[in-house]
Amino acid sequence: VAEVWAIVVAGGSGQRFGQQKQFSPLGGRPVLTWAVEACRTAVTAGVVLVVPASSDLSISHGADTVVVGGPTRSDSVRHGLAAVPPSADVVIVHDAARPLASQAVFGAVLSAVVDGGADGAVPGVPVRDTVKVVDPMGNVKATLDRTVLRAIQTPQAFRADVLRRAHAKGAGATDDAALVEALGATVRVVPGDPRNLKITTPEDLLTAQRLLEPGQ
Amino acid sequence: VAEVWAIVVAGGSGQRFGQQKQFSPLGGRPVLTWAVEACRTAVTAGVVLVVPASSDLSISHGADTVVVGGPTRSDSVRHGLAAVPPSADVVIVHDAARPLASQAVFGAVLSAVVDGGADGAVPGVPVRDTVKVVDPMGNVKATLDRTVLRAIQTPQAFRADVLRRAHAKGAGATDDAALVEALGATVRVVPGDPRNLKITTPEDLLTAQRLLEPGQ
Repeated sequence: VAEVWAIVVAGGSGQRFGQQKQFSPLGGRPVLTWAVEACRTAVTAGVVLVVPASSDLSISHGADTVVVGGPTRSDSVRHGLAAVPPSADVVIVHDAARPLASQAVFGAVLSAVVDGGADGAVPGVPVRDTVKVVDPMGNVKATLDRTVLRAIQTPQAFRADVLRRAHAKGAGATDDAALVEALGATVRVVPGDPRNLKITTPEDLLTAQRLLEPGQ
Repeated sequence: VAEVWAIVVAGGSGQRFGQQKQFSPLGGRPVLTWAVEACRTAVTAGVVLVVPASSDLSISHGADTVVVGGPTRSDSVRHGLAAVPPSADVVIVHDAARPLASQAVFGAVLSAVVDGGADGAVPGVPVRDTVKVVDPMGNVKATLDRTVLRAIQTPQAFRADVLRRAHAKGAGATDDAALVEALGATVRVVPGDPRNLKITTPEDLLTAQRLLEPGQ
């Protein structure tokens, strides 16, 4: 059986996703507690929670280890990785701002790495809107073929050695998978879940509350 | 003063956006009536509404002319264009499923064409998610630079002659601007509005209802 760890990233200082949203109550507990507990369906070992420097470290939110993040998301993931034992086979990285990630999504990314031979796996959903590339003048440079685009979510699963190598080499990217891709490693996109929304606005929080209501 | 017309596309037959959503009530009137009335802030001439073949053509939803759409969205826009007089200078194309397009967005696309010299103008908002390109195996081929991506909305404004030329030449594209771009014409992206959502799911309709509440 693979030793699976999860890192839940609640952001460092100066994140564009204000920490307020991650600590906002949702159905009686903070958003990030939902994210930590969702990881329990997939991990066989522990959950490392990375919190902003200003946080109360004595509140674990259900995690096994709580560490302080860095200035960027990438730095925060690296701080989390440092708390994952060398024996880990697979590391799942999950955004604290995604409280509604389903067991199916965790299962799909994990299975792609453990059983499917991928170095990494990320959930992706079809892109609803037409997406265009703009030039610096604001004119359209290209209209992309939407059928090959996927909007990427977390949780993302990686072979632990590959993720460590990627983070040792790369920096600054907001997306762990992109660092892994930069190594030439294989990252698979598995079906995500439209309900697995990222809480970035008060509106998102209302939507999440509604999704938790019976019948949804 | 430029002669400005609008075409509101409520879909033809067999659209992936079911007609139900466009005819759903929102704050006491159908979604598409909202879309038609929003166009009134920008047009100096008339509004052409394109409805599915099964519709009751005696209900105008506030439009000046009601015509029946074709099998694809592109066909439907062409049916609408055929009902716009040759004297038109500018044609705005708007989705019937976007009831909350603001006066500011209409003003911005119109101004880019009438005053700004663009052949076309479309509203765009930043893309929130990381977007990746997948290969046919489902593996990641590329992670796109999100800073140059825009998720495109309607209303979209075009020089009438350019839009007619684009639709005479191209077919099948779901996006009018892409047809215009294919001519080598200039399409500008102006700031869109996150509230200008497209109603495609029951969830979207609930969000629109909430956005109409006082204080939102």
